[in-house]
Formats: sequence, structure tokens, C-alpha cells
Amino acid sequence: MAGYSFDMENYMTRESFTKIKEFASTKETPFLVTSLGVVARKYDELKESMPYANVYYAIKANPSVEVLKLLAARGSCFDIASVYELDLVLSLGIPPGRLSFGNTIKKACDIRYAYEKGVRFFATDAESDVRKLAKNAPGSDVFFRILTDGLGADWPLSRKFGARPGVIFQNILLARELGLNPRGVSFHVGSQQHDVTQWRGALATCRELFDAAGKKGITLDLVNMGGGFPAHYLSSVEETPVYAEAVTGYLREFFDSDFPRIIVEPGRYMVGDAGILVTEVVMISNKEGEGGVSWLYLDVGKFSGLIETLDESIKYPIYSEQTGDVRDYVIAGPTCDSLDILYEKTSCRLPSNLEEGDRLYFLTTGAYTQTYSSIFFNGFPPLKSYVIA
Amino acid sequence: MAGYSFDMENYMTRESFTKIKEFASTKETPFLVTSLGVVARKYDELKESMPYANVYYAIKANPSVEVLKLLAARGSCFDIASVYELDLVLSLGIPPGRLSFGNTIKKACDIRYAYEKGVRFFATDAESDVRKLAKNAPGSDVFFRILTDGLGADWPLSRKFGARPGVIFQNILLARELGLNPRGVSFHVGSQQHDVTQWRGALATCRELFDAAGKKGITLDLVNMGGGFPAHYLSSVEETPVYAEAVTGYLREFFDSDFPRIIVEPGRYMVGDAGILVTEVVMISNKEGEGGVSWLYLDVGKFSGLIETLDESIKYPIYSEQTGDVRDYVIAGPTCDSLDILYEKTSCRLPSNLEEGDRLYFLTTGAYTQTYSSIFFNGFPPLKSYVIA
Repeated sequence: MAGYSFDMENYMTRESFTKIKEFASTKETPFLVTSLGVVARKYDELKESMPYANVYYAIKANPSVEVLKLLAARGSCFDIASVYELDLVLSLGIPPGRLSFGNTIKKACDIRYAYEKGVRFFATDAESDVRKLAKNAPGSDVFFRILTDGLGADWPLSRKFGARPGVIFQNILLARELGLNPRGVSFHVGSQQHDVTQWRGALATCRELFDAAGKKGITLDLVNMGGGFPAHYLSSVEETPVYAEAVTGYLREFFDSDFPRIIVEPGRYMVGDAGILVTEVVMISNKEGEGGVSWLYLDVGKFSGLIETLDESIKYPIYSEQTGDVRDYVIAGPTCDSLDILYEKTSCRLPSNLEEGDRLYFLTTGAYTQTYSSIFFNGFPPLKSYVIA
Repeated sequence: MAGYSFDMENYMTRESFTKIKEFASTKETPFLVTSLGVVARKYDELKESMPYANVYYAIKANPSVEVLKLLAARGSCFDIASVYELDLVLSLGIPPGRLSFGNTIKKACDIRYAYEKGVRFFATDAESDVRKLAKNAPGSDVFFRILTDGLGADWPLSRKFGARPGVIFQNILLARELGLNPRGVSFHVGSQQHDVTQWRGALATCRELFDAAGKKGITLDLVNMGGGFPAHYLSSVEETPVYAEAVTGYLREFFDSDFPRIIVEPGRYMVGDAGILVTEVVMISNKEGEGGVSWLYLDVGKFSGLIETLDESIKYPIYSEQTGDVRDYVIAGPTCDSLDILYEKTSCRLPSNLEEGDRLYFLTTGAYTQTYSSIFFNGFPPLKSYVIA
């Protein structure tokens, strides 16, 4: 079972793939299949590698009800990005005490709504948000997000979240003054982070803020390390224990054996590897005549789930069951939008004998795919989603 | 009624804005309001400027039922991108004879479905598609899309659509051989095209293909000029009559007074100016301390309708009712995705005294907004859409 430009066995066993393929065989493409077994394995692997960490699954990565139920049953907490995600988890009977409202951008009415539903744990990074929290979620636990540069991440961060440590320190003082409970500091090194040393610089800043707050009589006891642990896309990444060991080492360096409460917010890590997106070849075209590159048009594209191919940032392994010679293709989606090209600069070597109607399997598509689907772009419906055991 | 970085009167009258604002005042943000009066005016202006042209509205730009009904009543034809758009127009009683299946990327089953519903007019650009059309839509009229470079367009084209003239010529011969009816040539100069001379090069190629086909006994009598006429975003554009006069001049240059049947497929042109997106300021933050740039977070972003801000390509005029001094803001959406920034390099000068809860009005948002909305990204629902007279 040789893959193209990659080895299928690095991603899943023959048994797993066969099971998914059989499930998929009766369904009309395109669709996503999420495998609960993989999610469970990823959760367990993380808890084993970092037993001291509290896991808050970042729901936005894949909010399938079955995934949320599985993680809830295993003891996971949840990071919510909006009141809509709040409603979703509450509807599953997950108690509000297991939730963190991790989005720093919040309307006053949404803070109030979350507070009324029992949420007492909020991220913040701005003075105005601290004031809104004090008024609408009085006495709540808050943590403060610092700005990181996101270097080394495939899906980079920007300056959108967090603030400089000096600004954060003022917000910590303000929060106490306004009756909130400043608990700690959070950061995010960038999604799909390849460079584990990125955690070190952020933890050093946490330590400094802990010390500075201590001098003002504020005891911080929580570090929220966000996400960043990678899923297995085309480029190779270190395995979870390697990341965990390095991060644990940095924690020891800055906090000795007296770890604060540690939170991690895996999203991509938890569900990325669990998804397979099944698509069909709609058209193959050689538009430049003999010797030109071939274009492979699929029934899924940037606007029906694969938005993370923007700038070809995330490189999904693409599997075909055809065998034989391979050649380069440009791969594009089915809409009339010229931006709806998945890979043009990235070399996509797939079988020369691919035919229209053949299926392709995009591996590692469990995170940040289905929920990004456009509602009706070019009339196409959102990507269908199935969850299997 | 002074705008910021632009003059509101260039976009709409005080009466129009007041009417939309009043309608909007009772609705919860974010949402899009599309004004039918503007769509009607744009349609009429186009017909007046190019009385010889057959208008096929590109439904994908804004598929609101009210917009489709208005245009159908005025005699417009429609360009569909998928069988889903086909179902939509047929459900409104629009006859299939008024439709063009303009997407060159089609499954065999979708061609068959359209044919069974009465569609007899298809775009194509690839040998395999010609063969599928011959089999599933026998005897249909087809037109052949040539590759253009898209220079001068704000939302650029790519090599995704069309083929080189030599490849197209072979496809024209093949189509006739397989019993299809080769009618003509199509091109698209790129959406929001600033450079009217782009039409000239494409029309020259059409003329060459007409001549080459004629030598093989195939009479082509149709040129589909696609879209490209601009909407009024922040950068100024020529008015419709200026575009129309230039294009008409090029047609005379290549076809003398014996114009072929001319089709235009306006999408952005027809509905762009008709839309106002109403949003609310969620948070204002100065994350770098004194002297740093201010971040303005809105309740709408890249994934809830404003995807065309990617690479800051489309610059929407943003209107505030506050008056007084202005300053620069970075503008971002409400999701936890770091890519969800609307304008960071573009200078967005808005009132210094903006407050959380204030409304902002994104003008010229009638095209390519609502249908791009993500279904559930970060839990946020798709952008609401209203249509007024």
C-alpha cells in the first residue's frame, strides 16, 4: 500500500484505512470521516506524555457531537470560542465548570450570557475586555494572553491575540482592582508548530509576570500553554513525547518542581489525524497542450472544507489506490473562483493513470475543515461529515 | 455626511443610506442588506450602455431569491455554476432556455442532470469535458473558454479556467465531430478589472478562432465576454459607459459592424454596489502600549462573509456615523483564527472616538459575501441576509 510522495503506514494501518474505505464506499463524495478511535488515542497519548496537564479541547477544530462526547467521557475540559459553542457543549450535558471561554474578543452581552450559564473562567488580553468581564462576569477567574511571534508555525499566529507583557501586567493589576480573580498567563506558539523551543521563550515571560505580580501581592498559579502540538501532514513532525519532554523541561527550568496549574488547548493535535476527506476526480485537463502540467479538478476545494490550503500552508497527504507511474498535477476545487486552487507550487505527485470518477483520500483532515465550509458558495452545500468508531 | 478616506456621496445618496440604516436599526448585527433598487439601476445601466449584449447574471455573486426574481422580470438570463444553482433558478420558474452552465468543471452526472432539466448551453475548456458533454448533453450548444492572464484585476484570475487557443481549436473540432454545436468563444478578464484594454487582447483571440474555425466549415457566432466590470470599492473605477464604449470599440475593430451574439456575465458589477454589511465594534485594544496601533475587532470577519479581504484584495469602504478626528486602526474579525484580520497593511482611518457597540457600515458588499460564510466556524452562524426594495 504505497502512497504517493509519502508512506501510508506513517499515517494509519491498513486495517484502519480499509475500515474507513468500506464505510465511505456507499456514500456520495465529497465528505469527511472522523475516526473516534484516533481521537481517543491522541487524548490518551497526550495525558500520558504530560500527566500534569489539564486538557481543554479547542472545540473549533472539530465540533462533532460524537467527538465532544468521547472527550467529555474521558475527562477532558473544553475551550470555547463563542456563545454558540457554549450552547453546543451545554446541550450535551457538559458542566460549565469544565469550560474556558478562550476567545479574547467578546461582546459584553456574550460575557453576561456565559456567566449566567455558569462559566467562570475567561481569557483576556485588553483593558476594555477586563472592564467588561468585571461588570458582566464579576469575580470570575481570568487569565491573560501574552503576544508571541508564532515563528515556526505552519498556520501562523499574528499580532491579533495577546498583548505585550507590560500591557498585560497593567491588566492584571486592573483585574484585581475590579474584583476579578487573576489566575495566570496564557500564550499560543502558533498552530502546527515545528519548533519546540518556541515554548521556552513564552514560558520565560510567564515566569517574569508571575514574579512581577507576586511583588504586588497577586499570586498567579496557572499557565495556559494553548495549542501548537502538530498533526501529521506531509512534512514530518516530532512525535508527542518529544514535544512533551521538551516542554516539561522548560517548565522545570522556570518553575522548578513547583509547577503551576498547567492547561493545554489541543485542537489540531487532537482531531487532525482522525479525519479522512473523501473526494472524487471531476476533470483532468491539459490546458497548455502537450508537455504542459495536468490540472486535476476535485469535487472539494478551498470553500468546501480545505481553506487551510490558503498559500498552500497546510499540505495534506493525498492518497490514491491507483498504482504505477506518478506525475505532477496542479490540484483545484470545483468552484468558478480562480482562488479555489489547492496546490500549484507544491509538488503533488499522483498516479499518471488517474481517471475522472476516481476517489482520492485527503489524510489528516479532521481539524479545521468541515466547519469552515461555505454555506452556499457557487451553490455547493457544506461538506458532509460522518463520525465512525 | 463625510465618510472616512472616501466621500459617501460617491456611493449612495443620503436618502438611500438613511433608508437602509432605519431598516437595519431593529436588527441584530452582523448582517447584509441588499437593495433591489440598486440592482435594477445597474441592470438598466448595462443594457443602456451595451444594448447589443445578452446579460447572463452570474448567480454565484448573490443568489438571493429577490435579486433573481427582479432580474428575471427584467429579462435577464442566468449563468449557473452548479446543479444546486440550477435547482434554485428552476424553483423560481425561470425557464432552462435562459440558462448557461458556465462552470467548465462538471461531473458527468451533473451534465446529465442539467440536460434532463432542459439546459442546452454549456461552457467548456477541456477535451474530457467535451466528451462528457457529447455523451450526456448531446447536440447542445457549447462555447469554449480561452485562457487570459487576468492582469489588472483586483480579484485575479489564474490558469484555472480556459485553455490556450491551440488546445481550444482542437476541442472545437472534436465537439463538432461528436455532434455538439460549437457556438463560440468565451473569456474572462478577471473580476474587478481596472484595465479596460484587457478586453482587446481577448477579443483578438476570439477573432482568430472564428477565422480558424471558419476555414474548417464551422461558423462561430457567439462571444461570451464573461464578467469583469467593476463595483465601487475604495479605489476609484471608471463608470459603466466608459467601459462599455471601449469594449464596443474593440468589438468593432475585430468584427466590424457584424457583431456576433454577445454575452456578458456580470456578477460583482450587478450586485456589489447594492449591498451594505452592518457590523458592530466588539472590542478596541491597544496591545502594544502607548503609541501603538489600535486594533478594532468586529462581529464579522473573513469567515463570515468578508473572505475577499484575503491579501487585502478587495478594499471595502467602511462608513461610521461618528465625526471628528480620525486615526489608523487594524481591523479584525471575531474568530480565534489569526488569519481573520481584514485590513492590517491597508490604512483604515476611522474616527478616534469609536466605541465598543458602535455600528460600522461596509459598503459595496452585495457580491461574494454572504454565500462565502462558513457554516459553523468557531460556532458563529453564517451571515444573515436581508433584501429591501
